[in-house]
Amino acid sequence: MPKISHRGEMMPPSPIRKLVPYAEQAKAKGITVYHLNIGQPDIVTPKLIMDAVKNTDIKILEYSHSAGFESYRQKLTEYYQRLNIHVTKDEIIVTTGGSEAIQFSMMACLDPNDEIIIPEPFYANYNGFAIASQIKIVPITSSIESNFKLPPISDFEKNITPKTKAILICNPNNPTGYLYSKEEMETLRDICLKHNLYLFSDEAYKEFCYDQPHISAMHLEGLENHVILMDTISKRYSACGGRIGALVTKNKEVLTAAMKFAQARLSPPTFAQIAGEAAVDLPLNYFDEVKAEYQKRRDVLIKRLNAIPGVICPNPGGAFYAIAKLPIDDADKFCQWLLESFSYKNQTIMMAPAAGFYATQGLGKQEVRFAYVLNVEDINHAMDCLEVALSQYQSIL
Amino acid sequence: MPKISHRGEMMPPSPIRKLVPYAEQAKAKGITVYHLNIGQPDIVTPKLIMDAVKNTDIKILEYSHSAGFESYRQKLTEYYQRLNIHVTKDEIIVTTGGSEAIQFSMMACLDPNDEIIIPEPFYANYNGFAIASQIKIVPITSSIESNFKLPPISDFEKNITPKTKAILICNPNNPTGYLYSKEEMETLRDICLKHNLYLFSDEAYKEFCYDQPHISAMHLEGLENHVILMDTISKRYSACGGRIGALVTKNKEVLTAAMKFAQARLSPPTFAQIAGEAAVDLPLNYFDEVKAEYQKRRDVLIKRLNAIPGVICPNPGGAFYAIAKLPIDDADKFCQWLLESFSYKNQTIMMAPAAGFYATQGLGKQEVRFAYVLNVEDINHAMDCLEVALSQYQSIL
Repeated sequence: MPKISHRGEMMPPSPIRKLVPYAEQAKAKGITVYHLNIGQPDIVTPKLIMDAVKNTDIKILEYSHSAGFESYRQKLTEYYQRLNIHVTKDEIIVTTGGSEAIQFSMMACLDPNDEIIIPEPFYANYNGFAIASQIKIVPITSSIESNFKLPPISDFEKNITPKTKAILICNPNNPTGYLYSKEEMETLRDICLKHNLYLFSDEAYKEFCYDQPHISAMHLEGLENHVILMDTISKRYSACGGRIGALVTKNKEVLTAAMKFAQARLSPPTFAQIAGEAAVDLPLNYFDEVKAEYQKRRDVLIKRLNAIPGVICPNPGGAFYAIAKLPIDDADKFCQWLLESFSYKNQTIMMAPAAGFYATQGLGKQEVRFAYVLNVEDINHAMDCLEVALSQYQSIL
Repeated sequence: MPKISHRGEMMPPSPIRKLVPYAEQAKAKGITVYHLNIGQPDIVTPKLIMDAVKNTDIKILEYSHSAGFESYRQKLTEYYQRLNIHVTKDEIIVTTGGSEAIQFSMMACLDPNDEIIIPEPFYANYNGFAIASQIKIVPITSSIESNFKLPPISDFEKNITPKTKAILICNPNNPTGYLYSKEEMETLRDICLKHNLYLFSDEAYKEFCYDQPHISAMHLEGLENHVILMDTISKRYSACGGRIGALVTKNKEVLTAAMKFAQARLSPPTFAQIAGEAAVDLPLNYFDEVKAEYQKRRDVLIKRLNAIPGVICPNPGGAFYAIAKLPIDDADKFCQWLLESFSYKNQTIMMAPAAGFYATQGLGKQEVRFAYVLNVEDINHAMDCLEVALSQYQSIL
């Protein structure tokens, strides 16, 4: 029997999904599991965009343009315009989810063994895309003690080598929820200009900023040819299953190279492009309502967490994630124990152990990530469970 | 400004699409262009499957399982059962088009610099996937003079090195339309067993075999752990825009590795999975009608081509492609001339120059690929154009 590849072996399994079997066992025992482990929003997908798909009158479900329907790209320019991002339809490649935008950017800009600097903790799937692209992630640690703000510039500089081609940020951040300030974004601009690096900016959660406005990498003057915006409709419109994203850049060479990768896979999915195009016409207050809902949840979650003795959780400025430090030794074991051996009023909580979001071995062992994608009532129930669980767990140890 | 990657530069543009600007110019002059260059079927997508999408009642457009909906995978086992391919739902990973199945297979089974043997001419996008995966394609030439049958076993053996990990076939073939016989498939089995190689089998066109039955690589006894079937609904149901395919294998290690790449990109598109699931319930005579239509077109195309002085075109056994050798020096120039400088009754023909389907430099220069995706009347018009064009072109030279 032939062997699988080394990269196939090295590819990490999802840190979010690895506890799923334990959750299934808990459910089989009749226990309610509050899923705060995964960023699947519970917000209803707007009827307007589902109806757009239902009302299509397609005779032949043809390939679309490899860059996505021209009409959709044109429409997206309106959407970006409202965010003060000025691009033409030819500066947008519609991708199969934000995932593909990340993959195309890595392939088009980095060669095997080239290095990309990413502040950790970071979205765990970047590891998978880096292994697929055979590039090396160089982590720079942001810490819970400093609220996960951008690491100091000296940390970047000492990690830049001739192999460094790009810095990747996720803003607001998954998994920390941290929202980069204008000053931090300008620091990133300066580093990228000084060392001639790309700035890959994953802005999947840009609509969800609670206390200060979102500064897009596309807003940074003088950095136009360095920035690739990696975008998605997944969280924006609660349309994760559509699999539509976008790679947006002013750099013509990157567009040309990325288009060749796009042509190889023929086209992005047609139905969800129709949904995405309709979504641009949603009333402008759509996000106000969704944001208000997430903000309410955030406020409850953070307050409840910090009220538990020994728990520290910085207040996240955006997205719908938070990382908390718990008074435990090993979050992997604790999260498994919650599903395997614990229940309170026949309920338990599922969280994502944070170690999988760090590239540096040993970091994040006491931390967990929360996705506040449940309503306030359920978040409160989940926090009741966590509170009881922590006191029980500590007395066991 | 940072530079793009070497692989971004190396990535070949699509040989099918590079003449598009000339076709657009011809159309701007009011000339009708018969598109025989691209495999976009003109067959109407079955109403049953479009209705399945229109009748969905999805409240939240969530991520599906990374391997695809369980219900769809279960349904696909029925579809494969009818083709005498016996697999369970856990031996299927639903992919974003056949493209992603190819990509996952290459990534899961080959490391950078590993080699894959592919009979040429071959589907040009394999080049793109190989560059993305950093693997090396080793072509073995099949020639128009021998009707594009499988090259002799000695050609394989002399190209197998310690780096060779897989053989990739497309059956029936794009771009030649060649359908591999039972004997040829058994030859491939023997080579793969002897040298412990994977057999990647792209069977995108398996429903369209005209003169003899399709032998799937999954039918080869004793090769179960070596075979990866790379499948798609694109051509089967004229549903190219859906972007749904499948990776099917009995090899558990490959499934485990491929699943990690699948998890990194989260899930395949939801809407087209619904279409694909409904499609399994199409009446069994659906393919008879579609096949009869393609066969009629093939028969007209091949007869007309071989009636033109100096043109040679083997009769293809499957798919909807044919490669013909024309009495010209350079098909690239000729195809461009057809769009730029020629018309007959205000019409012209667009074909794909075949050199882009060969990896070996200099091969296929006199050849073109036809996709018979137009109705018989249009094929006849296109052949009228080609006939007149060839006589004019020869007198110009």
